[in-house]
Parts: sequence; C-alpha cells; structure tokens
Amino acid sequence: MILECVPNFSEGRRPDVVEAIARSAEIPGVRVLGIAMDADHNRSVMTAVGEAEDLSEAMFRAARTAVEYIDLRVHQGTHPRMGAVDVMPFVPLVGATMENAVQVAEKLGRRMGKELQLPVYLYEMAATKSYHKNLADVRRGQFEGLSSKMANDPPDFGPAYPHPTAGAVAVGARNPLIAFNVLLNTDSMDVAGKVAESVRGSTGGLIGVKALPMNTVSQGKVQVSMNLVDYPKTPLPRALEMVREEAGRWGVSIFRTELVGFMPAQALVDTARYYLQQFDFELTDVLEWALCRPQEEDQGRELS
Amino acid sequence: MILECVPNFSEGRRPDVVEAIARSAEIPGVRVLGIAMDADHNRSVMTAVGEAEDLSEAMFRAARTAVEYIDLRVHQGTHPRMGAVDVMPFVPLVGATMENAVQVAEKLGRRMGKELQLPVYLYEMAATKSYHKNLADVRRGQFEGLSSKMANDPPDFGPAYPHPTAGAVAVGARNPLIAFNVLLNTDSMDVAGKVAESVRGSTGGLIGVKALPMNTVSQGKVQVSMNLVDYPKTPLPRALEMVREEAGRWGVSIFRTELVGFMPAQALVDTARYYLQQFDFELTDVLEWALCRPQEEDQGRELS
Repeated sequence: MILECVPNFSEGRRPDVVEAIARSAEIPGVRVLGIAMDADHNRSVMTAVGEAEDLSEAMFRAARTAVEYIDLRVHQGTHPRMGAVDVMPFVPLVGATMENAVQVAEKLGRRMGKELQLPVYLYEMAATKSYHKNLADVRRGQFEGLSSKMANDPPDFGPAYPHPTAGAVAVGARNPLIAFNVLLNTDSMDVAGKVAESVRGSTGGLIGVKALPMNTVSQGKVQVSMNLVDYPKTPLPRALEMVREEAGRWGVSIFRTELVGFMPAQALVDTARYYLQQFDFELTDVLEWALCRPQEEDQGRELS
Repeated sequence: MILECVPNFSEGRRPDVVEAIARSAEIPGVRVLGIAMDADHNRSVMTAVGEAEDLSEAMFRAARTAVEYIDLRVHQGTHPRMGAVDVMPFVPLVGATMENAVQVAEKLGRRMGKELQLPVYLYEMAATKSYHKNLADVRRGQFEGLSSKMANDPPDFGPAYPHPTAGAVAVGARNPLIAFNVLLNTDSMDVAGKVAESVRGSTGGLIGVKALPMNTVSQGKVQVSMNLVDYPKTPLPRALEMVREEAGRWGVSIFRTELVGFMPAQALVDTARYYLQQFDFELTDVLEWALCRPQEEDQGRELS
C-alpha cells in the first residue's frame, strides 16, 4: 500500500531549514524524491513516497521540524498560507485506494493535533464538512485571519485556536495533480489576474484548473500559478495554450513555465500527443522506456 | 556490449511474412522490441537490441527469412528500396562504441554476401568509400537500376550482380536517429515535395534533417517522411515546426505525425522543453521515472 505525500512548508528562502525538514523525513521505507524551494512564494514543496505507516511517521517528523523552525508571524511571500506546515495531502499511488489515503490523513491529523498542538483541518477527499473540500476556502483569511476564522469554524483536531507561530494545517487526501507556473512577459499583476480568472474553472474557465496570479519579484515577471487537479480530463497542454491565448489578448506572451514537484507520466504523454499531433503516442514508444520493461512484455508485441 | 539494430524490410502488406521475419530474430540474448509495418511504404522497420554476437546472428536469420519470402520484382511502394533487406544499420547502445558497431556490420556483411549470395554495400560510418556514406546515394536507381549501377560501383561483399529477387542490401553503423512522418492536409505531392526540399539539409534546410515527399494513398494525404539524423543538434520540435511553417506557405496544415520505430528519450525531453517552455525539464521530473531509479540516487537530491 504505497502512498505519495506532497506537503507544502511555508519556507522557501532558508536552504538549511528546508534541508532539515527534508532530512527529518528520510526514514527507512520512505523516499524523499525531492523538495522544491521557491523564494518568491517563500514556500517549499516536498514529494515523498512510501508505505502508509512509514510515510505517516516521516510526515509527522517533517511537520515537527517545520513547526520548530518556521515562524509565520514574520513570514512574507506571494503564496497564500495559513501555517508552517501549510498543507499535507496524501495521494494513493500503488495498491492503495482513496479510502486508504483518507484514513492515513485522519490518523496523522489526530496525532498532529495532539502531539504538536496544531489545529488540523481535514480537506478535499478527507473533509468532514462540505465547505472544507476546497483548500482555498479552508485557507481563506490566511494566517493573519486565523483567530477570527476559527471562532466560527473549529478544526477537526487539535486546539480551537491558532498555534502562535505555526498557525494551522490542512491535512487531506486527493488525486494526483500537476502544479505548474506560467511566467508572463509582463510585470502587470492586472494581466496575470485577468488571465488566471479566465483560465480557472471557478470563474468560468477550464473545469480542472485552479489558478492564481502571483508577483514573481525576483524575475521581474508575474506568473499564473496553476493546479491541474484533473489532468486526465483537462490536460496540461490545453491549459497552457489557453493561458497563451488569454495572455495574447493583452499583448503578453509566455516567458517560460515551471513545474513544481513532479509531473505524472501521463502529462508527458499528453504533451507529446498534443504538440506532435501523435494521437496514439505511448511511453512504450520511447526506446529507453521499452528497455525498462520486463522482456516478457515483448511477446505481447503487435504488428503496428 | 549492447547494440541496437533497425533493419528495414521491403514488405509492409503481408502480416504473416513480417511476423515470420520478426520470429526468426527472436533468439536468446536478443529482444525484438517491435516491428512497424507500413502498407503505403510497403516496408517494415524492426527494432532489435542485444549483445553484439547474438544480435548479429539474429539479424542474419531475419535477413535469410526476408530473402526467402520477398520478391522485389513484384514489389511496389512509395519508399525507395533496392533490396528485400533494404538496410541494416547497427547502433551502439550500452558499453559499445561506433567502432564496435562498424565491426559487427563488416562481419555480418561478409557473411550475408557469402551465405545469402547478396551484394552488400557498407554505408554511413561503416562505408569503405566516401560516396557510400550517404544511404540515398547507395540506393540511387533502386532495385530496378541495380544491374547498371553495380557495373560501375561494385559492392563490398557478395556477388557483383544483383540477387534476382532480393536485390542488394546496405549494412552499416550509425548514430541513433528519429524516423518521423508528417502527414499534410493535402493530396498534392507538389506541396509535399516543396516542403521536404525546404526542410532537409541537402537542399538548404536544417542540417540534421533528411526528408522525402511520399504519397500516402491509404489516407488520401501526402506526407513528408523524415529522418532526424542528429537530433541532439537539430531536435524534433524544430524540424516539426519548420514543416508547419513551410506547409503554411502553401495554405496547408499538418494532419498528424507518425513515429516509425522508437523515439529516443532525449527527443521526448526536447519536446517537453520546447513546447512547455521548460528549459531545464528532465525525465527525472516525471514521478514514474524517478521511482524507477535506484533509491541511492535520491541522496544526490539537490534543493531546487
């Protein structure tokens, strides 16, 4: 029962802190595949994979380190956040169901509430209230608005008041997603906002797309920061081309894009199919990938 | 010392014959990864991988089967060809040098000349004459012109006259390439010819591109059939976009593309980098690929 966890920590500027968080998650049975720091967002995204029990233990340790080192009272960055460990989603990967992921989230959420004194909101597939399904709703008001928010909306676990330095955490279960930033050749947040509004589902765009405008100071560009939450239905190239089209309306082109964390193989296949106009492209068409497969699968070779 | 061989056989319409050729190459130590039939080209492209000695034996057996079943006197198709086994290139893959591939080509060429009574021209990196380096020059005049051609240009091995039904074969060594067909939304061979001429290096286009116009009867479209012979320098997306641009001059768009055989992983990376404008994209950014790697490599993880 292998799960993935992609926790986001509100620290993207101090490499020693980010490294300490990553190291504390490296326990037997867990692979920390990477951790991506973003100084503008002031946020880091870890990708870890492992058996449910081991992964849960590793994520608890990572969270404990983050609570120790991160002080939200002095945190500034372009990305919305409400906690030191801002969000901790579990994704079923191999031999695991969404129900398994929900159970891991619940159990870890309860433990974090008790042992770290963190208010824990269960979100998305793990949500216990319908208005907690959408992360943006849970996080509304951010760290600064937590006290007043929590008065009307108590957490699932832990104290009913914010942790003084670490705020609150959203723990959940969800399908895999693609986190993808598109940098625009402009410094106009107005344009980034209009493009994000046009492209995201909640305001009339593509149903599988969440999008926010962000001011990427260090590059002198703005960006449209996107989550493709149902990339099998709303694939990466379609979202990217819609950003290009909508930005073009304001005379703005795409500077470059960034992947945050990992890309599912399906998205790479979709990219090849879309842009190469090769509708039946498969990863098994790639020599190195075909050589990875066990030899027995060659027998299934069809004349093509 | 692992090599790849990508022999092309002049049969793309009789599945039983193509299957027999593939089966005869399936010996221990050799993986036949695939064989792609094309009815319009009337040609099949096999991809096989194995240790040098085993692969050479497998390719000999496949050639023997092809000579047995294919009669060039009654062969028709859009792709230029001079033999039943038209071309047999060896590619160094793992722990093998180009010199190794040349030696395998020479040894197998000698054997095919002797045991199959086939005239054998060594080409590209295995060429013994500078005017045999380019396959198109070796094949000029095709099967029908072989007798007169061979009077002035004897083969490296085998008889100095064509095999009555199997013609001649080009055996060689080369770097990996991408075989890639672009189908155009037109039935005008004139447009396909103009696009091919503009795009290929020999007539003023991209240096790493070979291209021929082909009449793809079964689809009611013409195609530009390309070999990208130096795709690290002239990558797939650049060639494709130049075809799009040149076809657009004649008011013609791209219908779809086809990969013949396998794509090197590098080409898929280039495709993602180009179209997603993600200049540092790597296959290790793909979750499934990262999970394939040995866990030790996680230690090399850098903050990114």
